[in-house]
Amino acid sequence: MSAQMQPGPQSGPRLANEEERLARVALNSLGEPGDPRLARLVEAMGAQELCARLEDDVDLAGLRSDASERLSGLDPRRILDGARQRGIRFVVPGDAEWPSSFDDLARVEPLHGLAGPPLGVWARGPLSLAEATTNAVAIVGSRSATTYGTDVAATLASEVGSAGFTVVSGAAFGIDQAAHRGALAARAPTVAVLACGVDRHYPTNHRELLEHIAATGLVIAEAAPGWMPTKVRFLSRNRLIAALGTGTVVVEAAVRSGALNTATWADRLQRVVMGVPGGVSSAPSAGVHQLLRSGAATLVTCGGHVLEAVSPAGHHLQDEPREQPRAHDALDLTARRVLDAVPLIHPAPVASIARTGGVSVATARRALAVLEQRGLVDGEEGRYRLRPRAPEVRSVPG
Amino acid sequence: MSAQMQPGPQSGPRLANEEERLARVALNSLGEPGDPRLARLVEAMGAQELCARLEDDVDLAGLRSDASERLSGLDPRRILDGARQRGIRFVVPGDAEWPSSFDDLARVEPLHGLAGPPLGVWARGPLSLAEATTNAVAIVGSRSATTYGTDVAATLASEVGSAGFTVVSGAAFGIDQAAHRGALAARAPTVAVLACGVDRHYPTNHRELLEHIAATGLVIAEAAPGWMPTKVRFLSRNRLIAALGTGTVVVEAAVRSGALNTATWADRLQRVVMGVPGGVSSAPSAGVHQLLRSGAATLVTCGGHVLEAVSPAGHHLQDEPREQPRAHDALDLTARRVLDAVPLIHPAPVASIARTGGVSVATARRALAVLEQRGLVDGEEGRYRLRPRAPEVRSVPG
Repeated sequence: MSAQMQPGPQSGPRLANEEERLARVALNSLGEPGDPRLARLVEAMGAQELCARLEDDVDLAGLRSDASERLSGLDPRRILDGARQRGIRFVVPGDAEWPSSFDDLARVEPLHGLAGPPLGVWARGPLSLAEATTNAVAIVGSRSATTYGTDVAATLASEVGSAGFTVVSGAAFGIDQAAHRGALAARAPTVAVLACGVDRHYPTNHRELLEHIAATGLVIAEAAPGWMPTKVRFLSRNRLIAALGTGTVVVEAAVRSGALNTATWADRLQRVVMGVPGGVSSAPSAGVHQLLRSGAATLVTCGGHVLEAVSPAGHHLQDEPREQPRAHDALDLTARRVLDAVPLIHPAPVASIARTGGVSVATARRALAVLEQRGLVDGEEGRYRLRPRAPEVRSVPG
Repeated sequence: MSAQMQPGPQSGPRLANEEERLARVALNSLGEPGDPRLARLVEAMGAQELCARLEDDVDLAGLRSDASERLSGLDPRRILDGARQRGIRFVVPGDAEWPSSFDDLARVEPLHGLAGPPLGVWARGPLSLAEATTNAVAIVGSRSATTYGTDVAATLASEVGSAGFTVVSGAAFGIDQAAHRGALAARAPTVAVLACGVDRHYPTNHRELLEHIAATGLVIAEAAPGWMPTKVRFLSRNRLIAALGTGTVVVEAAVRSGALNTATWADRLQRVVMGVPGGVSSAPSAGVHQLLRSGAATLVTCGGHVLEAVSPAGHHLQDEPREQPRAHDALDLTARRVLDAVPLIHPAPVASIARTGGVSVATARRALAVLEQRGLVDGEEGRYRLRPRAPEVRSVPG
């Protein structure tokens, strides 16, 4: 990192070199998000050197040819300044708010031909990306979600948000939208990662949601301002969502869903992958059930499960729900056999109870004394019956 | 096994010694199902020897004391003959229809103080227990089931029944009933394992169901004819259901459900344990979700999943559901980038498409030729647009 610090709209204690930033803006505009050639060459020679070579007409790995139509008239300073005027910054390695989680992408094999950390991300919003995603959970899923799915997504987002985690998602219809809204409802930070420029509202109906997130959380994208969302950009966007979360929860996903692509990225990044179960005939749950069956994902049904999975071992441990212990739980087998043999209505003598229970009279007498002491049976003149309204006497384990 | 074969109502090529059978009837009536002392002592000295010693007033492990009230007037011949007159047989080791799966119970640690293979089981119905359970799946769950749960149970039972598996369950309300009915609807064999005598109708509302199963399949119980169901007998009954199934499917189970007890037995018996997911806020699914989270059970959503799990490796392998492959699936990343850059309505020149897609004009031209050949784009006079109604052009992976 250069010692030459440039002032700029970015707040925070530490900024990357402005030349480096401009080189990355140029490469970001020349290439496509997730192009593994760019990441590889930048890692090998640095962004400024790569830029210089491409301008010198060196066709590194075909990059020069592919970028030829975009090179003419490229002006990274104009792009960066134009963005800054609209409150958009370009976050690059070396900036204090660059999240180290992105660097993990350098170690992951390409998926659908896409790989590598982003050269930088465009960001709108008051939060520091690094700080906001120190503790973050990605919640993703189908755009064609059911109300069940959106309810669960919103609840999970509120629960993890209330516990201090940032909710990362893609601002799409369905699960994504519900996850962002759940976080906002809990006044928790939320980060929307877009497949288009952060100045666009995609989908259009989410204009208000995106503006709200930009005002309180963060809207980020690898795609440059003004860029359209394309299929490939959705796929490369998914790897950023997976990288930013300590874990990724898939709430609903059909068997062919972008959310499963995000889950695959999370798995490759050795992040925790979680899935929410649903009805067996619900198509939007089929992809999640596949994930769970394959062992790639852990089943979660509540925010507590998610927190347990994404927290360091021993933190946020969940007690599995149990019913209240019942009075007969502590009884030994003999006492339970005797209790089973005590009639409900008409008191029976000890010998009869002993016979029914298959124990000796002496054993029955000892057991009945214990049962009476625990309030399970009533005895009078050597005859016993169940105490009325003892909470468990009518229930039978099946 | 003795060479002395006794004729009796039992059909089949091979019967145990009648003296052995009578000794086991006696012990079965003296003790309680699943009493580990009985199983242990019978294994050590044989049923006839144990019977003789108890009659001689030897208090082995307290058994004599416990049985004292039941010993007076015990007449195993009368019990057996009385049962036979009502079409009930007592199946013991050595009988051709004794299922070897019961013997696995000898190797399992006690659960709630219960353990061991049964001394014998009382049976009503035309099938051979061993043959009927050679390929068997246990389907169990809550009595307080939802319609979702009973629908799934019936469907699973029909599916595994149609594939040649016997459905084993406990004839209780809810999931059990639905499982038996699903098997009957598929004209598949079904076995009901009761906690009371096989001559009783418990629950009373299932009289017709139980009679139908007794007429076409099997109703069995470790409890002697006439015996009432008790809590402990439900627990010992569950171990027989788990033993008879190659695998056990839990369809719905609250966090404190007898079905989870059956699943624990199946797990200890090294049988396959399976669980059906449901909605995260459905109490009757909470116990199943716990099982799935603990890793004790495999998630299943259809009969095919169950068949795959209980069949020898390589049999009944399920293709996970997938959508039809789409035309663009086979495209390389460059072609997909070009396809993403082709407009939907107004045809664009190759240079514009190349610029949008971030590829050279030559690359765009080659890719467009491929895309046109695959029916994804239409070209005219060097301008291209997406082919209308190509099945995937409007969908975007999210």
